[in-house]
Amino acid sequence: MDSKLSVRHLLGIKELTQSDILHIFETGAQFKEVINRPIKKVPSLRDITVANVFFENSTRTRLSFELAEKRLSADVINFSAASSSVKKGETLLDTVRNILSMKVDMIVMRHSCPGAPHFLSKHIQANIINAGDGTHEHPTQALLDTFSMYQHFDGNLEGKKVVIVGDISHSRVALSNIFALQKLGAEVMVCGPITLIPKYMEALGVKVELDIRKALQWCDVANVLRIQMERQKTKNFPSLREYSTYYGINKALLEELNKEILIMHPGPINRGVELTSDVADSEHSIILDQVENGVATRMAILFLLAQRQE
Amino acid sequence: MDSKLSVRHLLGIKELTQSDILHIFETGAQFKEVINRPIKKVPSLRDITVANVFFENSTRTRLSFELAEKRLSADVINFSAASSSVKKGETLLDTVRNILSMKVDMIVMRHSCPGAPHFLSKHIQANIINAGDGTHEHPTQALLDTFSMYQHFDGNLEGKKVVIVGDISHSRVALSNIFALQKLGAEVMVCGPITLIPKYMEALGVKVELDIRKALQWCDVANVLRIQMERQKTKNFPSLREYSTYYGINKALLEELNKEILIMHPGPINRGVELTSDVADSEHSIILDQVENGVATRMAILFLLAQRQE
Amino acid sequence: MDSKLSVRHLLGIKELTQSDILHIFETGAQFKEVINRPIKKVPSLRDITVANVFFENSTRTRLSFELAEKRLSADVINFSAASSSVKKGETLLDTVRNILSMKVDMIVMRHSCPGAPHFLSKHIQANIINAGDGTHEHPTQALLDTFSMYQHFDGNLEGKKVVIVGDISHSRVALSNIFALQKLGAEVMVCGPITLIPKYMEALGVKVELDIRKALQWCDVANVLRIQMERQKTKNFPSLREYSTYYGINKALLEELNKEILIMHPGPINRGVELTSDVADSEHSIILDQVENGVATRMAILFLLAQRQE
Repeated sequence: MDSKLSVRHLLGIKELTQSDILHIFETGAQFKEVINRPIKKVPSLRDITVANVFFENSTRTRLSFELAEKRLSADVINFSAASSSVKKGETLLDTVRNILSMKVDMIVMRHSCPGAPHFLSKHIQANIINAGDGTHEHPTQALLDTFSMYQHFDGNLEGKKVVIVGDISHSRVALSNIFALQKLGAEVMVCGPITLIPKYMEALGVKVELDIRKALQWCDVANVLRIQMERQKTKNFPSLREYSTYYGINKALLEELNKEILIMHPGPINRGVELTSDVADSEHSIILDQVENGVATRMAILFLLAQRQE
Repeated sequence: MDSKLSVRHLLGIKELTQSDILHIFETGAQFKEVINRPIKKVPSLRDITVANVFFENSTRTRLSFELAEKRLSADVINFSAASSSVKKGETLLDTVRNILSMKVDMIVMRHSCPGAPHFLSKHIQANIINAGDGTHEHPTQALLDTFSMYQHFDGNLEGKKVVIVGDISHSRVALSNIFALQKLGAEVMVCGPITLIPKYMEALGVKVELDIRKALQWCDVANVLRIQMERQKTKNFPSLREYSTYYGINKALLEELNKEILIMHPGPINRGVELTSDVADSEHSIILDQVENGVATRMAILFLLAQRQE
Repeated sequence: MDSKLSVRHLLGIKELTQSDILHIFETGAQFKEVINRPIKKVPSLRDITVANVFFENSTRTRLSFELAEKRLSADVINFSAASSSVKKGETLLDTVRNILSMKVDMIVMRHSCPGAPHFLSKHIQANIINAGDGTHEHPTQALLDTFSMYQHFDGNLEGKKVVIVGDISHSRVALSNIFALQKLGAEVMVCGPITLIPKYMEALGVKVELDIRKALQWCDVANVLRIQMERQKTKNFPSLREYSTYYGINKALLEELNKEILIMHPGPINRGVELTSDVADSEHSIILDQVENGVATRMAILFLLAQRQE
């Protein structure tokens, strides 16, 4: 395994090699130990300034990045677009060039346009970390999800069967997870209402299953996505009640199957919709581990990209 | 006096012993000296991460806590509900568990529901500090208020007469102050329009007085609350003009009484409503001392609760 | 040159001597070297607490100040009026006195009222830095602008010809730049639609030119302001299209003149309105240097004012 990542930016999982991903996991495992010690801080990014540039709100991801940065001793600057010059008609490139002129070393960016971080990476020197670009990729979420499975299955996802349940069409988490799981040798299935599953899934080598019962029968892991009401634009979409009736996972359903399934969810959970509480809080759920691993994984990514600075 | 608090959380004054309160005062007095030195920082909370979780806006209290935390060298994370996943339907417990999974050690929380921090304290390990829960308690405000009186009266509130003036019904500051003053041996009276005084005051051992002149005649200290127009729901409420006519304190009124009364106010002041400027800025007013004591008291609370970590 | 500034506050350029300005430039040049080193931080303001008090939104200026403060190792507190007690009817003086009672040493303030920082400076002890007061002054912008010219012209602005292009009436940047340039011996012209040029320009010793071609013919430097649609109140104002036709600067226009003109802009740029991209991004543009110099200049101001503390 190389000691450096093959990339200078984390734009998406698509651009990573298997070796990159495993390198992030190994480094993440070390940082996970760090944040579980009484002294949770390391000086690794002292004298590095990181700007969290969020053109879309995201308390959860922003908080996780901010904690990761602070525990690496980086200087942290938060820029949110809601009250910014973006509103005054400034271009994305001008906004970011301005931030960089203030001697910022790394940019963590969330943007509503797919490809926005890729566009930026062609024009600027600083390392860019994609914290979600529209419905395209959310690579740090996929890395923390697969890292959580990786640790659960003792460092090997080869042949593991993972079903991603929910609104696949509008999910950047789904696409990034599919790329990551395939690079690690896992088999991937998506399951959800037909209206929420894109047509190109099979072309990506992903199984499609409309029946949640069959999907759960097949899988080792169910990564259950949040139903994002705010992203739905069509009237074909099932109501929350229909969704929970046909795709909600409850304890009765799991007990019927008589097998162990690892339950994951990127949060925030709509309790009683995607998952009932007895599933979300069960011993098979690693939902809170995912959150903890999020900080560790992001520390690893920041640390490894800082080593790629020119 | 014990060297440790009897509680693991600061949920309300009700749960504290007199010894706890005096211990906070002694520690607060030491931190007050610290923040008045050229070097205002101490390393006491290095490697402790504190999350300020505000489900209601509160610049003033949040700022005071943030400064207290930073001067103790804690790592500080701010979480405001306005732009958060709370809006996406997440439960309070899920939100807080998520924050804690990121390895946060202490939670300072403001919430609009009375009892929210008490509920949380039954389910999580981290120390919780209640920064105001609805119309219930606001313990750090009461501690800084009574600490300010305590320092003014040379360390003894036994037998002191304190009147709390204003909208008692909607005030968490009033209830917390009543509990704290009684535990310290002071006599407490409330004064305000009958519509703004709860029926259970006398059951708490609190005198009720509708006439501001008589109340001032009686007291050593007048703690004047802000009229919170945003909290009023009834049409019985006096207008600002009626309120200031009947309950506003001005210099003429004080001079008529021919005695020394300590004037306090938790801020922000509606000048000309609760207090005229010649009273708010007079030598008998300790309003700005209260603000300074707020940082010192909160440092003491954070420090003492951190010692109770398991 | 004195080793100390003649002022305790940075309220406006009007109050500064030439010697003050040059002292800020020399100090700024040193801090510019600092922030271009791998280790960008200095301990100069350790144990100083700075509050950024923004009663108007300003991501760009706030970010620049925050980075300047953090690189000086100051403790930083952000206070934005949007969610604050200002809304609850508190007076400006009470708000600031409250912040200062928390032991804050310096106040960086943006306010929509001209003169707000001057008013404050008469009532408080802490150093105040005006980060923009209505349409009055924006001294740190003028200092970074003239510092950028100063470095470009090898430390001498004597006799240099500078035209400020755009909406002069609504611009605090214009007024502060005029004062600074004149104190440094430069000649100043303003150029824009007649409706956007105040009548008192000539009384200030500033040339007025309505024809952009003639203005560019005359000048060594064109400092092009942003057209702030949000500040326009009259119907006389030209449309964006009219403005860009008559006052927009493009490459063809500059090539026609056959001379070298330094192009500046305080940002954010409306590309295609004030400047076309081939001008904004040309070798004659120092727009991004201005941003970098903004951090260095603000570090100098914070550092020099901290030395004036009593």
